[in-house]
Order: sequence, then C-alpha cells, then structure tokens
Amino acid sequence: MYENHTWTANVITLFPEMFPGALSYSLIGKALKNNLWNLKTFNLREFATDRRKTIDGPPVGGGAGQILKADVLDSAISYIIKKNSNYKRDDWPIIALSPRGKIFNQTEALKFSKCKGITIICGRYEGFDERALELHKIPELSLGDFILSGGEIAAQVLIDSVVRLIPHVIGNHKSLEEESFTNYLLEYPQYTKPLSWKNLSIPNELLSGHHQNIKKWRLNKSEELTKQRRPDLWKKYKSKGN
Amino acid sequence: MYENHTWTANVITLFPEMFPGALSYSLIGKALKNNLWNLKTFNLREFATDRRKTIDGPPVGGGAGQILKADVLDSAISYIIKKNSNYKRDDWPIIALSPRGKIFNQTEALKFSKCKGITIICGRYEGFDERALELHKIPELSLGDFILSGGEIAAQVLIDSVVRLIPHVIGNHKSLEEESFTNYLLEYPQYTKPLSWKNLSIPNELLSGHHQNIKKWRLNKSEELTKQRRPDLWKKYKSKGN
Repeated sequence: MYENHTWTANVITLFPEMFPGALSYSLIGKALKNNLWNLKTFNLREFATDRRKTIDGPPVGGGAGQILKADVLDSAISYIIKKNSNYKRDDWPIIALSPRGKIFNQTEALKFSKCKGITIICGRYEGFDERALELHKIPELSLGDFILSGGEIAAQVLIDSVVRLIPHVIGNHKSLEEESFTNYLLEYPQYTKPLSWKNLSIPNELLSGHHQNIKKWRLNKSEELTKQRRPDLWKKYKSKGN
Repeated sequence: MYENHTWTANVITLFPEMFPGALSYSLIGKALKNNLWNLKTFNLREFATDRRKTIDGPPVGGGAGQILKADVLDSAISYIIKKNSNYKRDDWPIIALSPRGKIFNQTEALKFSKCKGITIICGRYEGFDERALELHKIPELSLGDFILSGGEIAAQVLIDSVVRLIPHVIGNHKSLEEESFTNYLLEYPQYTKPLSWKNLSIPNELLSGHHQNIKKWRLNKSEELTKQRRPDLWKKYKSKGN
C-alpha cells in the first residue's frame, strides 16, 4: 500500500496561477522538478455550479466583505477526498488557512512531512462559510497574528517548511537537527570569515578551538537571546527543567 | 519632502527571480501594476567582491551549514542606505528575516505601512554573520516558530500584509477595520447563502435581523473561539479589562 508514493500538496485556491511561484526555485524547486514532492492546484471557481460561477456571498447577519460559499467549498473538498479515497484521512490531512486558526509551528510541519500529503484550502475575502469546515471537520491553521490578502502565500510558506523536511530534499540532515525550535531556544549568533573585519570582533570562545567552551558559549548566547526576544519560548524552555 | 512618494519594498536576496512571485496577482498585484507600491530586488551575489562571487562561509567555531558573509551583507546594506539617504532611517526601516527574530504581527505591519518603505534582508542557509546586523543595528523578525528554506517566501508574506494596508490597495476599508487582532479576538463564524444547506443550520441569531443580538452573538462566539484556540491571545484580551 502507498508504494512509490510522492508527498503531494493539494491546494484549493481562487488563484492557481500563484503556484508554484516561489516554490519553483532553490532546493525546494529542484526537489519539485525531481519529483521528490508534488503540487496540485484546484481552482475553487470550477466547483461553482451556477452560470455566473458564483463562489462567494455577503455575510448572513450583515457586515463587510464576502464569504466563500459552503456548497462550492464542499464540492471541491469532496472531490479531493474522493480522489484520495485510497488513503486514510489521517495520512492526508485537510486544513484551511485563516487568521482564525491555531498557530502553525515546526511540530505541525514535521507531522505533515510524515503524512502522504496535505490538502490546503486558501482563504480569501472574509473567510469560509463555517458549515463547510464543520461538515468535513477541517481545522483552521494560521501562520501568526497578521492578516494577508489571501491564504496562497501562507500556503507556500507552509509547503516550504514541510517539504524541506522530506528526506533527500535538503542534503545536509545534520543542519536540520541543530536548528531552532527543537529545544525552545533561538539560535546563537554565527560568524564566518573574514575573522577580522571593521573592528567588529568574533568572540574569543569561538576562535579557541575548545569544543566544550564553544558549546557552552553558544548555549549561553541562545539562552540570553531567547530570554530577551521571546519571553514566551523562554518560559517553555524553563518549564522543561532547563 | 517625500512628495509623490510610492511605498517601496527593497529586498536583498540570493533569489531575485522569486519576486514578485505570488505578489503579482490579485489586488496586491494589481496595485503593483498601478504603482500604488513598488518592489526592488537586490541580488546579494552582485555585492561579492572576489572572482568566485563568494557570499558565504562555514561557521567559525564549527557546525553545519554556511553563514552569509558580513562584508558582502554590509556592501548590499550600505548601497541601499546610500540610495535612501534622502529618507530618515525610521521612515525606511531595514529588517532581516530569520527564525531568531522577534515575532512579526499586525502591529508591525501597520507600522511598516506608514513608513516610506522597508528594506528586507532574506536569510538563507544557517543565517547571517552577526557583525553585519550589529554594525547596521538591524533587527531580526520572524513569522513564527517554523523553519523555512529561506527568507524569500516570508518576505512575500510580510510585504502582502503591509501592502494591503496602504490606502487604495484594498477598496473596502471597512473590512480592514473589523478584522482580527485589532482587539485580541479571533473572528466569529461567518455564513452566506444558501441559508438552508445539508441540514447544517445557520444560527437563528444571525437570521433575526436584530442588530444588537447579532452583535452579541458574534462577540460571544469570538470570545469562545479565542479562549479555545488561542489561550495566549485570550489572556491579552482579558488583561485589557474585557
């Protein structure tokens, strides 16, 4: 079962032309060309049933903006669920991107990278008719506390963060292990040559060649930085018994 | 001073071809074509001085990955600062995108939208030589607790969130006012026609036409949702005396 499967991102969007966009460059883009992952877009408008291809309407109860219609969203979602009926739903989660969602983070990225794929519904305008999400039990995810003109760029962020965790996409898996957030600490400051530059010196500890001292200096700096820039992360770090 | 000025995003990147990418579509893209905002990319590689155009090196003190060189970053940053010397630095902030930064949010987006422009340095590999950021007092900003293959897609997210706040980019400024995060509450559920669909009903309150009851229902739902999905925001909301 699932043999020769390629991790695939399905994207339901009103702007399929935005994809692959930035995802077609760099290591992620190379991996796409080499079929290490796959990207499929589904134009929401094609699931509209009336002659005018209506995909949205004004909010019931009044208010600004337009809401994406439940019946049109349902058609697109059901179409993909049917196409993926060989897969368990847990192996191919469906999520909606919206500022109302839970916050996306590295733990989610890692979880998605271990699935067979993911289906992302991109919000536009004032959001989704709640009933479509309710019917299909679709969780909303948010990148953070800011508003975008649509979910498409957010989807590219999410896909990038997941795809780079797929085996063979990034050569150096050691650098994946050492990176931020696996331990609730921000990364320590880094330096490279030239060693002497504009009277801005590189800390002696890093030049010492003394492995233990370097490790200690880096941990200290990571702690200092996390405490200063991210009191929320710092609290989590301390609560882990550090 | 600053007359006829167009808000401009300068982006220092190793992948200028990633831009405008998704930013060339939809309302944001239309606004770009109509010169309501402007986008300039600067290829970091062009600021390398050796024959091989070296832009990075291994971390001093050891470790995985490559670090973007301080002298090359400085050349690019200094070039832009010189070009922008007619503007006060506060009117045209320079930021670096990196998971080590403070968290970007709607308050920052609003602040940037009131500037003359912004200069964004996109991280790649294991990050920047700290000395370049130190020399130019450049703050690091992060979208959230996840790792990307580079800062370019994050820059597009940031630019999108800022540009949509620039006057005339989005027609309906009423919908900007009502949106999330201005009051630490997530948005209430929304519905649109068809009113009757698959036995999933729209709450009676919204159908009542009673403005006060609709308002009350929406506030209750916003509070309920925020409490459940975003305990961190909920705490801030309560601490504001709600």
